Amino acid sequence: MLGLGAMGSALATALIDAGHAVTVWNRTPAKTAPLVARGAARAGDIDEALRAGQVIVTCLLDHTAVHDVLDDHAGALAGRTLVNVTNTTPEGSAELASWAACHGAEFLDGGIMAVPPQIGTPSAFVIYSGSEQALETARPALEAFGDVRYLGSDPSLAALQDLALLSGMYGMLGGILHAFALVRTGGITAREFAPVLREWLTSMAAWADSAAGRIDDGDHAGDVVSPLAMQAAAYDAFLTVARDRGVNPLLLEPLGQLLRRRTDDGHGHEDITGVIDDLTTTTTTTGDNA
Amino acid sequence: MLGLGAMGSALATALIDAGHAVTVWNRTPAKTAPLVARGAARAGDIDEALRAGQVIVTCLLDHTAVHDVLDDHAGALAGRTLVNVTNTTPEGSAELASWAACHGAEFLDGGIMAVPPQIGTPSAFVIYSGSEQALETARPALEAFGDVRYLGSDPSLAALQDLALLSGMYGMLGGILHAFALVRTGGITAREFAPVLREWLTSMAAWADSAAGRIDDGDHAGDVVSPLAMQAAAYDAFLTVARDRGVNPLLLEPLGQLLRRRTDDGHGHEDITGVIDDLTTTTTTTGDNA
Repeated sequence: MLGLGAMGSALATALIDAGHAVTVWNRTPAKTAPLVARGAARAGDIDEALRAGQVIVTCLLDHTAVHDVLDDHAGALAGRTLVNVTNTTPEGSAELASWAACHGAEFLDGGIMAVPPQIGTPSAFVIYSGSEQALETARPALEAFGDVRYLGSDPSLAALQDLALLSGMYGMLGGILHAFALVRTGGITAREFAPVLREWLTSMAAWADSAAGRIDDGDHAGDVVSPLAMQAAAYDAFLTVARDRGVNPLLLEPLGQLLRRRTDDGHGHEDITGVIDDLTTTTTTTGDNA
Repeated sequence: MLGLGAMGSALATALIDAGHAVTVWNRTPAKTAPLVARGAARAGDIDEALRAGQVIVTCLLDHTAVHDVLDDHAGALAGRTLVNVTNTTPEGSAELASWAACHGAEFLDGGIMAVPPQIGTPSAFVIYSGSEQALETARPALEAFGDVRYLGSDPSLAALQDLALLSGMYGMLGGILHAFALVRTGGITAREFAPVLREWLTSMAAWADSAAGRIDDGDHAGDVVSPLAMQAAAYDAFLTVARDRGVNPLLLEPLGQLLRRRTDDGHGHEDITGVIDDLTTTTTTTGDNA
């Protein structure tokens, strides 16, 4: 286990607690102490860490840090299984997969869908993509982290879906922050409001399933329950209420703009799912000039 | 039951199916036919509708429509219970409550947290605020719509929390649309991705509960698992991946701007919850000039 930040330490702890023999390494050696006290072996250097077992897990700062740590010791990778759970881009994962293959290692990329305190609990799951052989070799260890979800052999799949899940989450977090700010203007505390907000969002998360069919089929007009034009009007009204109460609605404004634009463009009778066309036929300056 | 759009018709159907005697009225009388076929009585005019029973439910286009329908027949309200589930603002609800009191009616405002097909199913709930006496009188009828949640006697509470719940939902919907657009660039269909996205968002909705304590206490710095500076850096990275893949990240950009601004302002060690201070110490032009 290389890299003992909050996440790396949680992963190493879960491995130890599940009965695996774990060797740990960190650039700042002090971070190894609690894990050694729990039963881990401490590697004296990177090479020792890499040669300590069949499965190598890297949980480092970023893609650059992975190369900084491994490049001078690539000889130790031959015949081993490298599982990289460092946050990276889809392109970064693909590059690491090629690099690892070049050095004779099976490569698996992982996206951890949990915060460190959740590791090893039933609420944690990890998405993986890359070598299926690496998955099978590492599986007993990976099961200690959380539920194992294999997405396929293309190593970039986990990073892409990880980023997409985070995007969905940040959208929701922005909505939650706006909601708390809004109820506070009526003297309602976040603690009072949180249970109903959570229940509502949990119920509405099912929208992902119902929207998926429309999006894949490009059918935004059939059997529409809440037409876009109606939603656009309601949306304007609730942005106005927010502004009138001193809540800056900046987190929610862009979706309102898209709803209005699509209504003006003659899509008012359609479902809100059609907005996805405005996200992918991008008109950002960056895109146009690239 | 006055107002037989998609929602009003669903409410009337639920009442009939639960065994209540229901009289229906709609400006366009044709909408009454399916309900009359199911067992409802059809009111010949508004006055007849209002006098048909103890509990009057209005589900109309907007606040203005409620006055348009009721103002000339206010005499029929005396001693009755008016339950308004028309979408309105907190101020609009408060105004209707005063107006109803003036005419001798008990008033309850409701926010329906469901789409019409969910009415009468276990996934529907309705938040109410206003007269507790109205709530008790109307409760047997209201239970046919969905779970009854009473928020308190201030009639504006339901509308405010309704708007806040919708805000949270639209934040999440925007995140879901961005996520689907992003995975599509890797050839992953929305149908494939929806189950994991839904599971993840359901799990992360619990963030509302953990954030609530920090927000109420104004404590954004204690026991931080994911410091804002780290999140801001990761956020920039995933916006860049989106742009590079032709996905316009406009729905998620404002939160990224707030994360960067707060990091630059020295809050990088804090939790993301502190962003709420940037929403409520509003600097919108509208607010400053008002």
